Amino acid sequence: MNKILCGVDIGGTKCSIALVNEKGKILDKIHTCAHIGKKEQELIKVVVENIKRIIRKNDLQESDLPGIGMGFAGHIRFPDGVIITTSNLKGFKNYPLREAVQSHFEIPVILDNDANAQALGEYKFGAGQGYNDMIFLTISTGIGAGIIINKKLYRGMTGTAGEFGHMIVEPDSELTCTCGNHGCLMACACGMALPYLFEKKLKEGKKSKLNLPPNFNMSEINGQLLKKGLEMDDPVSKEIILDSGYYIGLGIYNIFQALNPPLIVLGGGLTNWGDIYLKKIKSTFYELARDMIFDPIEITISKIIGDAGVIGAAALTLE
Amino acid sequence: MNKILCGVDIGGTKCSIALVNEKGKILDKIHTCAHIGKKEQELIKVVVENIKRIIRKNDLQESDLPGIGMGFAGHIRFPDGVIITTSNLKGFKNYPLREAVQSHFEIPVILDNDANAQALGEYKFGAGQGYNDMIFLTISTGIGAGIIINKKLYRGMTGTAGEFGHMIVEPDSELTCTCGNHGCLMACACGMALPYLFEKKLKEGKKSKLNLPPNFNMSEINGQLLKKGLEMDDPVSKEIILDSGYYIGLGIYNIFQALNPPLIVLGGGLTNWGDIYLKKIKSTFYELARDMIFDPIEITISKIIGDAGVIGAAALTLE
Repeated sequence: MNKILCGVDIGGTKCSIALVNEKGKILDKIHTCAHIGKKEQELIKVVVENIKRIIRKNDLQESDLPGIGMGFAGHIRFPDGVIITTSNLKGFKNYPLREAVQSHFEIPVILDNDANAQALGEYKFGAGQGYNDMIFLTISTGIGAGIIINKKLYRGMTGTAGEFGHMIVEPDSELTCTCGNHGCLMACACGMALPYLFEKKLKEGKKSKLNLPPNFNMSEINGQLLKKGLEMDDPVSKEIILDSGYYIGLGIYNIFQALNPPLIVLGGGLTNWGDIYLKKIKSTFYELARDMIFDPIEITISKIIGDAGVIGAAALTLE
Repeated sequence: MNKILCGVDIGGTKCSIALVNEKGKILDKIHTCAHIGKKEQELIKVVVENIKRIIRKNDLQESDLPGIGMGFAGHIRFPDGVIITTSNLKGFKNYPLREAVQSHFEIPVILDNDANAQALGEYKFGAGQGYNDMIFLTISTGIGAGIIINKKLYRGMTGTAGEFGHMIVEPDSELTCTCGNHGCLMACACGMALPYLFEKKLKEGKKSKLNLPPNFNMSEINGQLLKKGLEMDDPVSKEIILDSGYYIGLGIYNIFQALNPPLIVLGGGLTNWGDIYLKKIKSTFYELARDMIFDPIEITISKIIGDAGVIGAAALTLE
């Protein structure tokens, strides 16, 4: 019998619970938003009930699964499965989520940061297959990452390794990160920086073809809107996409010098900006790395099809 | 019988060959400068003869040693023991140094980058003992580093992992690195940046108490001179030392976010600047990391006593 894996991705706007096969294909999935605004105990109830439901619905028993993998956006203390911080959901500060869910199941429950989970999913089922080492970078509202070294996730002492988004690449930058520092990679080049970057271009006198209404709430500027701008040949959208690509290229260069990996995989919503974005990332990287690349390095887009969050969470049970 | 290790450190100004005990203590050492200006084959002759001499001199036989470890300043392709680049010695481009030395011995010869060797020495004999993971940063003319993950050197695909000195931390900086990029950590904060930084302070109108003669060759500004300046309470020397400490603190912060290590060890000549320097490094790190440190991280000075290069090289035979 093929192994069936169970993954849970707990995000700020939706919670997904899925069964996934050994090749990373989703067999069945439940989406719920019932966890939003709930306190810790009630969220756990939602999660546990839906895991039990999807198992039952597929004529399985808990013991048919190697475990339950959970991905959560935030700082996770991996050795003890505790959520240290999260910006997407209220509460959960220093909350032992793994233990709380574990108490409802006989099989092992694993809790990790969502980017680590996605990195492992990419490694087991996607672009990372066959490699020993790999860096995964997910670029969406924020920037997350996971490090695969010697076929395993490298998590560091707490479990927070791979926070490349907080690497400072422009200390004098006026761009401030959620962490409070200036010029983090995340402050310069991800979804949450877009409203600021857009307004700045307008203030510099640049005209956008997006024709936003006068009362448009600038905080609604996001990757999708800029993608639309790109399709309309909007110079403001294009400039921001190229600027963001430059910083990601620079970030990847720093990662390359630090870890000399054979493979860097990019995932996350902003990769939907497509070729122009990826080309800028790569050209920046190769301009900086030049003659310091002694073996070919692959920089590629995630090959996970479907919900990378929940597939990654399921992959945690294969570790 | 205690194990006796053999290490060779091939640098630009001297070549050291030593026997080292299992605790990292030097038992006997030969220094030679006979390799300078020599072509590849002649350098190998100098190295091989001196290894054979130190073995004979100590009434040992080759087979008493587990191997010969060699550290070399430059990019080394570790899997095949080839020197890719070196800035300290002429020639040696794509030179198979390990094989060339190996042909003279029955026991294994290991060749690695000098900073990797020092990192391993620090891990086996110094501040790293008892840890699983560690980052070692050596700050002298340039900046080198080594990464210990899961008790072993992590080298990346080519062997060039740990080039934190080439991380770009100030892309618009006027400071240029040997690699040609602007604002690498190495361009901002190591020995080779000091002449430029010193001249810049003077051009800004700052007065140095060092009283350098009018025809002083600015390229001779180095760490020792600034140390002397510090002792004289020279404001220019002090500012440069603090600026350098800031950048190292920032670099360490980036390393912390990337790898979340429990221990960062600093070595190299500039650590002789002492407390004022180390305090600035640490205060910068803690200001940036603030509430993102969830487990204690140790930042400390190398505990290797004596010649870290040759002790590190010897440690390579313990891997």
